[in-house]
Amino acid sequence: MHDMIEATQITRRLADYVVNATPADLPPAARAAAVRTFLNWAGCATGSSHHETLDVALAALAPFSGPATASVLGRRERLDPLTAALMNGISSHVFDFDDTHLRTVIHPAGPVASALLAYAEYRPVSGPDFVNALVLGIEVECRIGNAVYPEHYDVGWHITGSTGGFGAAAAIGKLLGLDTQRMTWALGLAATMPVGLREMFGTMTKSFHPGRAAQSGFTAALLAEKGYTSSDQGIEAKRGWANVLSTRVDYKEITEGLGERFEIEVNSYKPFACGIVIHPAIDGCVQLRQKYNIDPEQVESVALTVHHLVLELTGKTRPRTGLEGKFSVYHASAMALIDGACGEPQFSDEAVVNPRVTALRDRVRATVDPSINADEVRIVLTMKDGTVHEMHVEHAIGSIARPMTDADLEAKFNGLVVPILGEARTANLLALCWDLEAQSAVSAIAEAARL
Amino acid sequence: MHDMIEATQITRRLADYVVNATPADLPPAARAAAVRTFLNWAGCATGSSHHETLDVALAALAPFSGPATASVLGRRERLDPLTAALMNGISSHVFDFDDTHLRTVIHPAGPVASALLAYAEYRPVSGPDFVNALVLGIEVECRIGNAVYPEHYDVGWHITGSTGGFGAAAAIGKLLGLDTQRMTWALGLAATMPVGLREMFGTMTKSFHPGRAAQSGFTAALLAEKGYTSSDQGIEAKRGWANVLSTRVDYKEITEGLGERFEIEVNSYKPFACGIVIHPAIDGCVQLRQKYNIDPEQVESVALTVHHLVLELTGKTRPRTGLEGKFSVYHASAMALIDGACGEPQFSDEAVVNPRVTALRDRVRATVDPSINADEVRIVLTMKDGTVHEMHVEHAIGSIARPMTDADLEAKFNGLVVPILGEARTANLLALCWDLEAQSAVSAIAEAARL
Repeated sequence: MHDMIEATQITRRLADYVVNATPADLPPAARAAAVRTFLNWAGCATGSSHHETLDVALAALAPFSGPATASVLGRRERLDPLTAALMNGISSHVFDFDDTHLRTVIHPAGPVASALLAYAEYRPVSGPDFVNALVLGIEVECRIGNAVYPEHYDVGWHITGSTGGFGAAAAIGKLLGLDTQRMTWALGLAATMPVGLREMFGTMTKSFHPGRAAQSGFTAALLAEKGYTSSDQGIEAKRGWANVLSTRVDYKEITEGLGERFEIEVNSYKPFACGIVIHPAIDGCVQLRQKYNIDPEQVESVALTVHHLVLELTGKTRPRTGLEGKFSVYHASAMALIDGACGEPQFSDEAVVNPRVTALRDRVRATVDPSINADEVRIVLTMKDGTVHEMHVEHAIGSIARPMTDADLEAKFNGLVVPILGEARTANLLALCWDLEAQSAVSAIAEAARL
Repeated sequence: MHDMIEATQITRRLADYVVNATPADLPPAARAAAVRTFLNWAGCATGSSHHETLDVALAALAPFSGPATASVLGRRERLDPLTAALMNGISSHVFDFDDTHLRTVIHPAGPVASALLAYAEYRPVSGPDFVNALVLGIEVECRIGNAVYPEHYDVGWHITGSTGGFGAAAAIGKLLGLDTQRMTWALGLAATMPVGLREMFGTMTKSFHPGRAAQSGFTAALLAEKGYTSSDQGIEAKRGWANVLSTRVDYKEITEGLGERFEIEVNSYKPFACGIVIHPAIDGCVQLRQKYNIDPEQVESVALTVHHLVLELTGKTRPRTGLEGKFSVYHASAMALIDGACGEPQFSDEAVVNPRVTALRDRVRATVDPSINADEVRIVLTMKDGTVHEMHVEHAIGSIARPMTDADLEAKFNGLVVPILGEARTANLLALCWDLEAQSAVSAIAEAARL
């Protein structure tokens, strides 16, 4: 069943790399990507912090929290760091608006940043050490993901949860100063508690996955620090993680070029709070609105030419709930023309039944064209006065070819955080996030994100 | 890859059964087996409580414990119930001396009893309710195990950890009074956090598996209680637990005969603290010693005729450590003739180098005979004066055909617990365990097991 490639000391070599990597080894591009990843994560976790999913999780588990040293972003509660890592990891994924490592569809920050920030309120961590641990944790989870994608995902694992524990273990293990043996054990412990079946998509349990991965990886590192032994070959053994959880594995993806290239540099950020397939259409409508100052009530028709997945996954013509709206290219395009944005407010239960929105939605048509790529769209907008506006988006905003700018990230952050913290505190938090590397104690950022 | 048997509502039907099963539905044999299972678990967890494995786990994680309502058996520490469930689950498996569901090699009590006893110190639980929840939790984990064994185990999962979360979730969910929908979610949450790769065998992480399963299942039930949603088909969905973690599944094993037969009735208890293959030889030597009042120094030779697995797995002629002694049929047989027992003391580092032991060990020979069954042995003991004693064990003590008596279980319990709690407190704890069903609050047993 498994493609048994010769592999020795994969776990130990990865551990050894993490143990020896220093902040000074990081290229500027990796450091900049780490700041953007962290800022985007903090915005998502804060923005979702009052969703029912988090209310329920806190009601269930906060009563069992230990000494309350760590913040839950966007809320008043403080918890022990393991429980806080769980909660912030859940929160960061609730809107499905977090970062994406496009090659593996891993959402890298959830498991790693959630563990790290909770740790930073437990023991002091400087900005450069935090950034280093964040880069290394993401490197570990994404490399392990690269080694088994897509087969591991096809088997049915939600790869963010199933690789995320490795990332959190590596990141926390780095801050704990583990030696190579103990870091190897931490990865072994992470290997033995993977989280996340894809069957859970569409339920609150999907968001549980990055949170539990953060908590499990954190736990693994703590145990290893005190000498809790595990396998030295947790990833590559015959009955280790890769062979048990995937039908194929390429260990070169884990061990080659360590320290030379950084997966965080190809991390991406979603501009819109919905599945990535309709991002080109939204992007095009936002651009049309800006360029031609469109009055939605004067629109006669919107003709989209799209990739086939758009209609397969998001072809819902009459969404009845906000969540269903995320699966309607018609609703999303209308919202983009009306509001110039598609954040969480544009996918509220109210928005999908707003007469102004439904009137425009019903004028949107979509046609599949095999020559259109997944991150591409063509739009022909006809106004009631006969004017025709056209837009061709070759690469949607947020794609690797056209990443979100820092200003885009700020706008997204503000859209998420202002409703929770208000203007002034959001501005303060944003500034602190941009200055992540300059912090003498990163706990200051967690404190600024509390309600 | 998977044998996709038609299956609907497997998770829900199992949940529905658990929700509606009452203490009055339990046959006397199941209730008696529950008491024996609990007593054996309590002895194992208490007996191993000062092993390095538990010292390390406590050092790592006790600092993050919440309100300390729950006992760690055999120790002074108190912890929040989730952390206590983890610790007692670890402790119960450290000596590899806990109960075994022979058909699946699941150790059923670790995940379930560890969660339940911690819960019973959080909210009051009566004896009958505790027994009912214990039976149901073990029913759930063993039935799910039956449905996928041996393929799931062959894939590489330590089945005690990978099914144990279901058992703990069902048991705690029962005490929480979940309705069918919430019980279904609890099982879904348990499905998404399986624990345990077989690669971890031989390290402390093996014992982590039942503990983490207890903690994860407990967590799943708490979340579901508050309305944390999950899949309704966590076990049987295309990308649910069974299809993702096994290459074959027979859902009839889960749903047929619910409430008519009870897996706990075929639970078994190890008389000796080592792998089950050398139990016949130890049993025979213990019987020879008792029957003929053997003086070990007068033994000329011990000739064993054994099943082939005995030499494959435990053929070590000169063990150097206690752990290696567990893999030596020669050492174990010598200890059985000298001490009339093979508990943890007989596998100490001192025991394997004791000259009196090694002198006898070197006189033990073993020969494989294809006609000998796995739970059988023939022994010819020749004394220095020429006397010959023979023993034929058809079914070793602890097998289904020849279960340990209550007196055997007591002797084992005392051997494990007296070194920790002393004679008087051990006798008190033992009496409380036998009276499990009569307890108005089972927390009394946990308190009696604290140092």
